[in-house]
Amino acid sequence: MVKTSRAAVVPKPNADLIIEEYEIPELEPGAALMKVARGGVCGTDVWLWQGKLAGVPYPLILGHEVVGTIESIGPRPIKDLDGNELKVGDRIGFHDVTQTCFSCYYCLIAKTPTKCPNRKVYGITMDSTKFPRLIGGYSEYLYLSPGTHIMKLPDHVSFDGASAVGCAMPTAVHTVLRSPMRWGLNVAIQGSGPVGLMIAVLSIVNGASTVTVLDKARNRLDIARKFGVTHTLNIGETTLEERKETLREITGGHGPDIVYEATGSPQAIPEGIELVRDGGSYTICGQYTDHGLVEINPHLMNKKHLDIKTVWGSETMHVYTGIKTIADNFERFPFESLVTHRFSLDDAQKALEAQEKQVSLKAVIQPHGD
Amino acid sequence: MVKTSRAAVVPKPNADLIIEEYEIPELEPGAALMKVARGGVCGTDVWLWQGKLAGVPYPLILGHEVVGTIESIGPRPIKDLDGNELKVGDRIGFHDVTQTCFSCYYCLIAKTPTKCPNRKVYGITMDSTKFPRLIGGYSEYLYLSPGTHIMKLPDHVSFDGASAVGCAMPTAVHTVLRSPMRWGLNVAIQGSGPVGLMIAVLSIVNGASTVTVLDKARNRLDIARKFGVTHTLNIGETTLEERKETLREITGGHGPDIVYEATGSPQAIPEGIELVRDGGSYTICGQYTDHGLVEINPHLMNKKHLDIKTVWGSETMHVYTGIKTIADNFERFPFESLVTHRFSLDDAQKALEAQEKQVSLKAVIQPHGD
Amino acid sequence: MVKTSRAAVVPKPNADLIIEEYEIPELEPGAALMKVARGGVCGTDVWLWQGKLAGVPYPLILGHEVVGTIESIGPRPIKDLDGNELKVGDRIGFHDVTQTCFSCYYCLIAKTPTKCPNRKVYGITMDSTKFPRLIGGYSEYLYLSPGTHIMKLPDHVSFDGASAVGCAMPTAVHTVLRSPMRWGLNVAIQGSGPVGLMIAVLSIVNGASTVTVLDKARNRLDIARKFGVTHTLNIGETTLEERKETLREITGGHGPDIVYEATGSPQAIPEGIELVRDGGSYTICGQYTDHGLVEINPHLMNKKHLDIKTVWGSETMHVYTGIKTIADNFERFPFESLVTHRFSLDDAQKALEAQEKQVSLKAVIQPHGD
Amino acid sequence: MVKTSRAAVVPKPNADLIIEEYEIPELEPGAALMKVARGGVCGTDVWLWQGKLAGVPYPLILGHEVVGTIESIGPRPIKDLDGNELKVGDRIGFHDVTQTCFSCYYCLIAKTPTKCPNRKVYGITMDSTKFPRLIGGYSEYLYLSPGTHIMKLPDHVSFDGASAVGCAMPTAVHTVLRSPMRWGLNVAIQGSGPVGLMIAVLSIVNGASTVTVLDKARNRLDIARKFGVTHTLNIGETTLEERKETLREITGGHGPDIVYEATGSPQAIPEGIELVRDGGSYTICGQYTDHGLVEINPHLMNKKHLDIKTVWGSETMHVYTGIKTIADNFERFPFESLVTHRFSLDDAQKALEAQEKQVSLKAVIQPHGD
Repeated sequence: MVKTSRAAVVPKPNADLIIEEYEIPELEPGAALMKVARGGVCGTDVWLWQGKLAGVPYPLILGHEVVGTIESIGPRPIKDLDGNELKVGDRIGFHDVTQTCFSCYYCLIAKTPTKCPNRKVYGITMDSTKFPRLIGGYSEYLYLSPGTHIMKLPDHVSFDGASAVGCAMPTAVHTVLRSPMRWGLNVAIQGSGPVGLMIAVLSIVNGASTVTVLDKARNRLDIARKFGVTHTLNIGETTLEERKETLREITGGHGPDIVYEATGSPQAIPEGIELVRDGGSYTICGQYTDHGLVEINPHLMNKKHLDIKTVWGSETMHVYTGIKTIADNFERFPFESLVTHRFSLDDAQKALEAQEKQVSLKAVIQPHGD
Repeated sequence: MVKTSRAAVVPKPNADLIIEEYEIPELEPGAALMKVARGGVCGTDVWLWQGKLAGVPYPLILGHEVVGTIESIGPRPIKDLDGNELKVGDRIGFHDVTQTCFSCYYCLIAKTPTKCPNRKVYGITMDSTKFPRLIGGYSEYLYLSPGTHIMKLPDHVSFDGASAVGCAMPTAVHTVLRSPMRWGLNVAIQGSGPVGLMIAVLSIVNGASTVTVLDKARNRLDIARKFGVTHTLNIGETTLEERKETLREITGGHGPDIVYEATGSPQAIPEGIELVRDGGSYTICGQYTDHGLVEINPHLMNKKHLDIKTVWGSETMHVYTGIKTIADNFERFPFESLVTHRFSLDDAQKALEAQEKQVSLKAVIQPHGD
Repeated sequence: MVKTSRAAVVPKPNADLIIEEYEIPELEPGAALMKVARGGVCGTDVWLWQGKLAGVPYPLILGHEVVGTIESIGPRPIKDLDGNELKVGDRIGFHDVTQTCFSCYYCLIAKTPTKCPNRKVYGITMDSTKFPRLIGGYSEYLYLSPGTHIMKLPDHVSFDGASAVGCAMPTAVHTVLRSPMRWGLNVAIQGSGPVGLMIAVLSIVNGASTVTVLDKARNRLDIARKFGVTHTLNIGETTLEERKETLREITGGHGPDIVYEATGSPQAIPEGIELVRDGGSYTICGQYTDHGLVEINPHLMNKKHLDIKTVWGSETMHVYTGIKTIADNFERFPFESLVTHRFSLDDAQKALEAQEKQVSLKAVIQPHGD
Repeated sequence: MVKTSRAAVVPKPNADLIIEEYEIPELEPGAALMKVARGGVCGTDVWLWQGKLAGVPYPLILGHEVVGTIESIGPRPIKDLDGNELKVGDRIGFHDVTQTCFSCYYCLIAKTPTKCPNRKVYGITMDSTKFPRLIGGYSEYLYLSPGTHIMKLPDHVSFDGASAVGCAMPTAVHTVLRSPMRWGLNVAIQGSGPVGLMIAVLSIVNGASTVTVLDKARNRLDIARKFGVTHTLNIGETTLEERKETLREITGGHGPDIVYEATGSPQAIPEGIELVRDGGSYTICGQYTDHGLVEINPHLMNKKHLDIKTVWGSETMHVYTGIKTIADNFERFPFESLVTHRFSLDDAQKALEAQEKQVSLKAVIQPHGD
């Protein structure tokens, strides 16, 4: 029976991570202890480390993308969402990072739980000085509080494969579900980072007729092609007019039915409005941090008769669907190849730096080595 | 049997209207001749007169909002959309101003007929030198070509009442149908011109919990109150922060579920994004002419998890539903009171000038006097 | 400080109700005690008394439609859904009778919480021998467990008015939300009991063009007319062909756009399929108990190109919206007139018998007399 | 320049087909002449031959599934739906068999054009004694009237492949578009005839997690497996309880998210209601002819909280999307293998008999031999 867990802690914004050893608390009824196999390093972790997100408590154990096994279960049996009892040794993944309150206007009336003001996220919104302390994935063990929506990882889905898609997959699921996706459509995706790539995966899975990815990083466009997108466009090597013209050719003259934005750059917005076909759909999920204002033309937007959606965060349903998607399509896409860098818990600081410099495609922390 | 019709013609952009007399052509099979009772003067007519819309042919007979009676019918019987045969003397209104081709991608595949590139509009896109010449409502008679979707005006709907709502009602119908309107919602409307007012009417008819109209013209806000909106906000007398705060109070803390834009001003767009509640809907229909760029904050838009629709023009279904709406609610709203100025055909020029100066709320031309 | 509460208990199926006195337990954190002003008597209560619903535990305190005031609050402050803190003395109503688990496939993935297998309903699924015992509305006091979604009753909504609409209103809200309701449509409603009547109210509030109610009980049709429906049809005095013909006339030739079923009679289903217009919507919510099989014609159903929805139960959102609907429209409909019979707690047995014989329109129990 | 065309004509119901030679009329503006490469034999053709469909005129040239080339074009240029001009020699397919009026309530207001009372179908609703006589595909040439929505067949789609999917594909497209299809769902399909098989193809293309086909004909289930469905169930070799249990296992416990009906048998309806999961979707398109009544349980239907759609016919959009689907997925499915029997025009009678006895999977008539 394990008694303690080592964890990499951010003591305060911009300070180097330190390794601490915490006592593992006694499990409450409904709680479980997870042995961490992979703690994924997300772009958001860098911002958290640098103190760029408001309202985050420190000291903080980072890590909201976690896969591993159940080490122990509290005094009450626990079930997964399909009603199956969970057991010690079960491989679990993407345990639901977002805990919403199910008691507020956003959870119950507006049915937009990602806007729940009481939302809690492992590795982001919880302070590691308070019970149960072990609340982030840069750690040997993670305490899963009662009510956490734990999901089993199918046997054929490797830890690498599952952690590679990280929190990008649930965000992509949410984004695609808010758009009129169906087979036979022409899709364009602005941005070929993790979220854009997962939107590309979902577009292919849904039978899109063409999937065009736009980015300025050649290596990212290369990966998109390896994942099977039909076309790529390098925005650093073409003009907007050339991109519009190319997309018209690709799509039989009308332009893409759906454009997805997953860039983080305000300049993407006016371009997306230009690219989408008249009467088409533009779905925006990449503007997660405030990079200021951008100019748009309201008349153009109005004249094109558009359906624009913005998408904030993800919820249990999107995590559940994301795991199902990986499981159903594990042979079809080279998910595992996305993990390019591995670090021990002691090197968690180096993992953040690799992510910051975009050296790694996907870095993971392996607290137990294997 | 009438042989000729007098009509007010715009000879070329910015030139004064001249009265001409045209021969009434023999009616084709499926065609009908309409005796014009009221030719509504629309804001768009002023732009057409001034030559501000691209691709419009001159000389042109203005007038796309027309009510009147059937003067004669061609050699083949004609029916309304409900399959009832139309007869000489029938009162008809809002005859379908938009003729789309039903043979193109936009009409048949994308199902956005207002984007049909072959669309024809009485009083806007047809040249009065060509057959059948009488194609605008500033005229004693109007030639209704085969295929025009003619709609009967119920007996209790007066010509004044019907022409008062003009082409604003079909646009408002289209706009509301593209939004998640239903009973019990909190609605805010930017702009209290004809379209904004008709959106207010539809919001009330649909059982909205609160309807707040924002404008800077006091007289327009007065009219909105006379039509029964629950709140008005003068944007010339309040700050954005005050408007946000007031709307939060009105709506029980969350902000409006739906914001409609019907202003024509680019500045309305960033304000609308601020006003709508998180997870709410913003529906834009007022940006019909190009007034340049405006700055928005993509992060704010993304974070609010919005559903934004833009709405272009209107189609037969919206005209049909608009007439039904007026008929069902003719006693409930003071539609007739909107007609504030009346002109003879000879004074059509003065009607345009009254509209240009916004002296009139709704001006109509009565080519036959009564 | 009240120490005990008298309650009317069903000791076992079909046995007469007995009055017992229970100790009021100490309030847990998050719990509250409600002083019951009105315990509504629902048709379901008669079935529960007679033991006709499977899986219900006895002894049982009936009463799932309850309005009253907050008597006391446990050691932790509690809030309503809009985030406002609740206080002793607050008038509350329709406290959320359905507690779902927010941890299962139906709550979180399929988003159909009324199919949650762990759903708990005050006055139906809880055994009065177990903590907290006071779990039904036929009682002086009701124990509101932590997590119950308590809703404030606006000042202008009387206890009578609120209890009159009972659990019929949330069911009607759910039903209407699952149908393509909007202004200007022609609606027909099969059944003029409480649910049918509330669907009629919602149809009127949503601006339906015509609302026709079908029933065989003249007094119920009379009430529907008092509530403002445009037409009624007595199915005991007309043939199906006559009803179809009348509805075609009422609706301008096509038949009703939406037919709602709220009868409980299997025979209503084939008739509803006949009545609805081609391409229309049929929404079924009245088949709550098993009355066996009925014959339908699949070809007719297929040929009519229908959209059929069935609706099970209601959830928090529907209760919340129901209260808002009553509050917004309290002057417009004679809700209070529906309460025709009042009983003391000691006469709860008589209340059930009145409901069984349909002597009462709406019977309420007033445990404190006023 | 061809002057005449031989055609196989049904002189009256149940009479043997006779070969007649008709003069090819001069082409009107907007018309075209098609040289028929394949006239597909559809199950409906057998019913038409036997006089089992009401309101069909005789003599009649059968054949509503036609692919071939443009032989000549009338005095006005014609375009396809994407706005590209069509030329002599162009390979065209699935020319739009349904011509609707675009002037009635169903076409323009209810937006359900397959219910248009004025709909015309090549090979079904037109009398071969009247101009232009050549209105069915069992003929050397077909007269394409002005307004027919002609669609080009991509070069890589063979005549065999295109005619194999016949009118089943547009019906399947319509059916799937009316259901909540998306990636990751569990689908069950009742019936493995042409329509059921095309629904299976669309389910696979849309990324369904599992696709189970139910039928009693082993050879049809074999073909479904060749097309890639994940599971088949022989309804002649299993009980309903076994099928429910198997589907629960396949789908992880809940049952199929969507069940499609494509059988023609009334008994399929109560079974479909049993099979679909709680809160799921049941979409019915196979009840095209009247085979009488069937018993269902309204309580079961209500309790399951279902979304049931019925689907009538197909329209231009479905034909267009069907061709796109075949073109996008021509390598992925063995479409051509479905053509099992070929007949000359002189043997058209034998083709009908092969279809009647279900000897052929798909029979085609090749009027020009190749």
